[in-house]
Amino acid sequence: MGNYCLILQYDGTRYRGWQKQGNTDRTIQGKLETLLSRLLDQKVEAAGSGRTDAGVHALAQTVSFRADTPLSCDELLAALRRYLPEDIGAVSLREADPRFHARLSAKEKTYVYRVWNSAAPCVFERRFVYVFPDVLDLEAMRSAAARLTGRHDFSAFSTGKKTGKPAVRTLSALDVERIGEEVRLTFTADGFLYNMVRILTGTLLEVGRGDRTPESVEEILRSADRTTAGFTAPAQGLCLWEVRY
Amino acid sequence: MGNYCLILQYDGTRYRGWQKQGNTDRTIQGKLETLLSRLLDQKVEAAGSGRTDAGVHALAQTVSFRADTPLSCDELLAALRRYLPEDIGAVSLREADPRFHARLSAKEKTYVYRVWNSAAPCVFERRFVYVFPDVLDLEAMRSAAARLTGRHDFSAFSTGKKTGKPAVRTLSALDVERIGEEVRLTFTADGFLYNMVRILTGTLLEVGRGDRTPESVEEILRSADRTTAGFTAPAQGLCLWEVRY
Repeated sequence: MGNYCLILQYDGTRYRGWQKQGNTDRTIQGKLETLLSRLLDQKVEAAGSGRTDAGVHALAQTVSFRADTPLSCDELLAALRRYLPEDIGAVSLREADPRFHARLSAKEKTYVYRVWNSAAPCVFERRFVYVFPDVLDLEAMRSAAARLTGRHDFSAFSTGKKTGKPAVRTLSALDVERIGEEVRLTFTADGFLYNMVRILTGTLLEVGRGDRTPESVEEILRSADRTTAGFTAPAQGLCLWEVRY
Repeated sequence: MGNYCLILQYDGTRYRGWQKQGNTDRTIQGKLETLLSRLLDQKVEAAGSGRTDAGVHALAQTVSFRADTPLSCDELLAALRRYLPEDIGAVSLREADPRFHARLSAKEKTYVYRVWNSAAPCVFERRFVYVFPDVLDLEAMRSAAARLTGRHDFSAFSTGKKTGKPAVRTLSALDVERIGEEVRLTFTADGFLYNMVRILTGTLLEVGRGDRTPESVEEILRSADRTTAGFTAPAQGLCLWEVRY
């Protein structure tokens, strides 16, 4: 029984996210498991480094799965490339240590949120950016980002059911950069709560627009109250960029 | 009556090309003229710098049109941005010299053909590249490109009805460069024949793959016979990049 590490790239526009649901056809995990099970003639379960929500993209989602097959990695990779839909791409495949698990072994993840900060059109990358043309004060956003970086309870920057699980995460980097018409936010942490990147982004955009002060993010962190933070930026600007092990 | 110069960007995937046909709904020109006529409450005819075929994209198509309107350029540009579909973008709009005409005044055009030269997936730009994973000899392609550059009768690199019109064009630059997994071909000329960039691309790819020698393109030029040249590369890799006046 081999243990495999697969890197996937996907355009999340058409999907209900990574994690399979009843109807597996509209999730990345569902598409992948169905294909692997058919190719390898056995039930294959694929673990992602983490869920991505409906509409979120991945430049490099790491996936692990166990299977028993005479196919080489190159052969299996070629088969995946042939049969995956055009909006899901198999970047690489290798055999991994038997203990490797895409989610449990992950040390750090990087997400990128792409904001199209212009009234000019963005025809070619329109599915991968969030259009927000208001003038942004990047220095204010960087000041807020510096206050968010580090080890904090990020409860205020998360939605969904209170699970009682710890909400302390280490946000090791939060970079704010302008690349032409785009403002790109890059988040690296040892883990992310549900909607955390999208709420951090919405809050930073409100800081950039002058609706909030950079200092106010410290109060939001202390409050541990979702209602004190900014809006949830839409899924389509978000991309899982890298997972480190 | 003002004379206007509009720069348009478009993803040609959904369209039957620039030039309007009976059913104007599926062409860029048709979409634009319908919208301008409605916004300005008068019949507006828009001239493009040239036709782009079905499925061909434009980073910067130049369009001219005459209209009588109290709207400022900024107001009209904002209205175009609001009402054009998401795969057609209005980059800029200005008033032009009364004699300016997007097609008749054009001095030189640049087209880019993007080849995805890898077995690796290209999920995010898949609509804008042609996937051609065979190993390519770029030096051979550059040698052929150098022989194609200059003033020649390009009849062999054109399809469609023989119109008897002169087929001599000056190809002032033909650059072949690798950018990561992509091989990008950039063509600049004073004019292009029907399918000329796509047939030049197909021929250069055949040279790159070793099916033809670089020298053979001289014979193709001399033959003035379409059947001696290479295949017509698909529309989706082609983009009108720039028009100079």
